[in-house]
Amino acid sequence: MSGTADITRIETTERLSRVVKHGGLVYLSGITAAEGGADIGSQTRKVLEKMDAFLAMGGTDKSRLLRVEIWLRDVERDVAGMNEVWNAWTPKGGAPARACGESRLAGPAVLVEMIATAAA
Amino acid sequence: MSGTADITRIETTERLSRVVKHGGLVYLSGITAAEGGADIGSQTRKVLEKMDAFLAMGGTDKSRLLRVEIWLRDVERDVAGMNEVWNAWTPKGGAPARACGESRLAGPAVLVEMIATAAA
Amino acid sequence: MSGTADITRIETTERLSRVVKHGGLVYLSGITAAEGGADIGSQTRKVLEKMDAFLAMGGTDKSRLLRVEIWLRDVERDVAGMNEVWNAWTPKGGAPARACGESRLAGPAVLVEMIATAAA
Repeated sequence: MSGTADITRIETTERLSRVVKHGGLVYLSGITAAEGGADIGSQTRKVLEKMDAFLAMGGTDKSRLLRVEIWLRDVERDVAGMNEVWNAWTPKGGAPARACGESRLAGPAVLVEMIATAAA
Repeated sequence: MSGTADITRIETTERLSRVVKHGGLVYLSGITAAEGGADIGSQTRKVLEKMDAFLAMGGTDKSRLLRVEIWLRDVERDVAGMNEVWNAWTPKGGAPARACGESRLAGPAVLVEMIATAAA
Repeated sequence: MSGTADITRIETTERLSRVVKHGGLVYLSGITAAEGGADIGSQTRKVLEKMDAFLAMGGTDKSRLLRVEIWLRDVERDVAGMNEVWNAWTPKGGAPARACGESRLAGPAVLVEMIATAAA
């Protein structure tokens, strides 16, 4: 196929699109939220708020997440705090596949980044 | 689409599903195996055993892997040991796309995590 | 489905396939380029050259990228230099979803690794 008429991009800059739709799938860019607060609970809540909004832009919602990859600046310190917010947000019986590891992220204030793939 | 009747989730907890099927693809959660032993060879073997089992739950097998992302706690020390077990396990002529990097994982005993996507 | 006739693998070794095609999607292995030079600009340029070549082998091109995950050896030092090359390479109005974090990679000389998924 030539052209990209079958690909929908949302909130596109020169660097990335926040949401890309193709073939029944919705791909989100990595979401961070240093502005959400200085602790893991606040940042996780803000990341998930933003994820809800980006999923809605893609015409889907958290009940249709397929996999989420989660990166924490300090996994041993913050995994429990992140999980507490995550578990409360995740639809009962509808949790996606998930992976979690540690990575230094775009800046020292960024404690968590999430990369999500959903069904459209 | 509303509802999630087109998504199959297997071994679902409040946090994650071990296996998610949708649209001809099978998404696995990150697999670790600290219980597999204290060295990279043992843990890699155990991770791959578990991957075989999760792929089977999803109705597929390692010959249909599309991409695997591998995270090692110490990539320079352990990449050779991981590769030795990986290469023996991978179907001849049927290796998936792969990426490998370093990440501190859920606990200090966890040496390797693998995130797999397969065709159903 | 048994067999793997619906999966196309390109540049397959015992460890990985550089390109895997299935169901309208093209999955690339992680691309690094220590041979590209000792600075982030040179390595990023070389990684993107190789990505162009692998996408072409898969019958697609950068205008059809869906998501790219980028790992830097030193994210705070190198993210600006990587972005400069990335932004110039990315099709105007056609940037994929993207995520970026830090990971030690296969060797100390490797400054950047990119994992790409594209529409066929």
